[in-house]
Amino acid sequence: MVTQDYDLQLLLDILGVFVFALSGGLVAVRKGLDLVGVVVLAWVAGLGGGMIRDVLLGDTPPDGLTDWRLLAPAAVAGLAIFLWYRRLRSVIPLRAHVRAKLIGRSVRVLDAGGLALFAVSGSLKALQFDSSALAAVILGVITATGGGALRDVLAGQVPEVLRRELYAVPALIGATLVVVADSFGFLTPLLIWGAVALVFAIRLAAVALDLNAPTALRTTGERR
Amino acid sequence: MVTQDYDLQLLLDILGVFVFALSGGLVAVRKGLDLVGVVVLAWVAGLGGGMIRDVLLGDTPPDGLTDWRLLAPAAVAGLAIFLWYRRLRSVIPLRAHVRAKLIGRSVRVLDAGGLALFAVSGSLKALQFDSSALAAVILGVITATGGGALRDVLAGQVPEVLRRELYAVPALIGATLVVVADSFGFLTPLLIWGAVALVFAIRLAAVALDLNAPTALRTTGERR
Amino acid sequence: MVTQDYDLQLLLDILGVFVFALSGGLVAVRKGLDLVGVVVLAWVAGLGGGMIRDVLLGDTPPDGLTDWRLLAPAAVAGLAIFLWYRRLRSVIPLRAHVRAKLIGRSVRVLDAGGLALFAVSGSLKALQFDSSALAAVILGVITATGGGALRDVLAGQVPEVLRRELYAVPALIGATLVVVADSFGFLTPLLIWGAVALVFAIRLAAVALDLNAPTALRTTGERR
Repeated sequence: MVTQDYDLQLLLDILGVFVFALSGGLVAVRKGLDLVGVVVLAWVAGLGGGMIRDVLLGDTPPDGLTDWRLLAPAAVAGLAIFLWYRRLRSVIPLRAHVRAKLIGRSVRVLDAGGLALFAVSGSLKALQFDSSALAAVILGVITATGGGALRDVLAGQVPEVLRRELYAVPALIGATLVVVADSFGFLTPLLIWGAVALVFAIRLAAVALDLNAPTALRTTGERR
Repeated sequence: MVTQDYDLQLLLDILGVFVFALSGGLVAVRKGLDLVGVVVLAWVAGLGGGMIRDVLLGDTPPDGLTDWRLLAPAAVAGLAIFLWYRRLRSVIPLRAHVRAKLIGRSVRVLDAGGLALFAVSGSLKALQFDSSALAAVILGVITATGGGALRDVLAGQVPEVLRRELYAVPALIGATLVVVADSFGFLTPLLIWGAVALVFAIRLAAVALDLNAPTALRTTGERR
Repeated sequence: MVTQDYDLQLLLDILGVFVFALSGGLVAVRKGLDLVGVVVLAWVAGLGGGMIRDVLLGDTPPDGLTDWRLLAPAAVAGLAIFLWYRRLRSVIPLRAHVRAKLIGRSVRVLDAGGLALFAVSGSLKALQFDSSALAAVILGVITATGGGALRDVLAGQVPEVLRRELYAVPALIGATLVVVADSFGFLTPLLIWGAVALVFAIRLAAVALDLNAPTALRTTGERR
């Protein structure tokens, strides 16, 4: 059943690479990096999570190095952000803080999309490699959060997975849903896309409503 | 001889995961991270070193993904820190700087325990995989310092292995002791626990006496 | 043809490890790290890129763990920087900002040498493992930039690959040259050393002329 979904998994991966790479490019633009920095950070954000997953599964060399269907979307996303941002800036002059806010919000929406797609595709791939249910769930979460974490560490900021509202939790829910469905034989394309939509919706709701997991300090907001 | 110690190595790993995960949880609490951040950082600190070791040895998927006997202590440690810190804070109100100092000291003692356990278990596992003596020593040091380094990089601070007093050196001594004992056929459980105790003692002495390796600048203390 | 160049590739690796390790040691000295920190950062900078390459290729354990011909140059470089810097400092008293500038410039020249050597050796090794042309080029760039990126992330600064003038681009050119030459059967030692020299020259020119890739913000200079 899982093997029939090979094309579906590739599609999830391509979409995930593309939106994560867009988020990486935007973070790079916000940091004032040059064209190469934008493309490199787009590449890291888009392909990093999947490469960590493949190395942990022992599936080397990882697809992110060898498959142009994954490499191309990452490069296109980096270039698109670079060109689009330059043009947009000259057409619509915004105040610096408004622009920073818009970019920040865009990064988080794109990131939510990548999180949803990779949580599902990560656990699917782990199941194909006969991982245990536990390992498949954890690999789904690592795939979903790894690329963003690498992006943030390289850009010199604390990773979203550590400091933001509910971030790893939606990925955990999505990966668990896939693994449970698989063990009961209900892993249909509909369920897979449903899991993606669910993760995306929970994460967006967390961003929009500023839902935070409880902190030990009973305070909220950004702190370093 | 080494193979007989399989259960012993698992025990070392479980204890190491637990104390490193406690240190990760405390660092997260100090940074004001939420529940998920505390659990994630506990997981990274507890399982990161062993996963790096397993990937370098080619033993994929790493035990930290598949073995619930390692995953459970990491999760328990993260939850325990979260709940304990909250309660302790309402029972014993301390001034902020006293509390910060206490946490910092606890992190370093726990970290010393994890360092000792992982230096020994890392080199033991490398020997089981027929690594050369040199590689086994280096893998011991990487296993011992890797989880803490990942924890610190994700939390946005320079890793202890780079900025603190004697930190990598005790791990190096412990791993060397294990490898030398193995080559002479003296690798008994007693020697293994002795090596753990030795690394722990040296590291604690370094913390307590503020022993620093010499610097090229002839200055000491924290600097970034 | 490639297999005949095995000794050549080892030579490229040894030289690359040595100059990258020197750069790592200098960054550590500049950060005021102690002897262990200097040696650790030299080790990470010198061997990190090659170890990432080997893990991605599935060639575990990586040569950087097992081959003393790579480990020794990294250790020697770290010790040399430590001793040399101390002595130099007492012989030639320079003002702090002049010294900082000198170190910064030395780091970048050494880094350029390592970049050139590893871009070529990384793609050569990938070709030996029958990687596709695309994967060989990307692995060359990862090998060339990985060690420096690890060095910078551990030392708490944004990696050169993201924030400096043309950095990844020369590595990309060198790796592409090697892969194209291989596919046409022209991969002679002369061409290999020519590729190293070309990457080094482009990178040095970029440093000297302060050549930057375009930024989306139309501004230049250092920013974080």
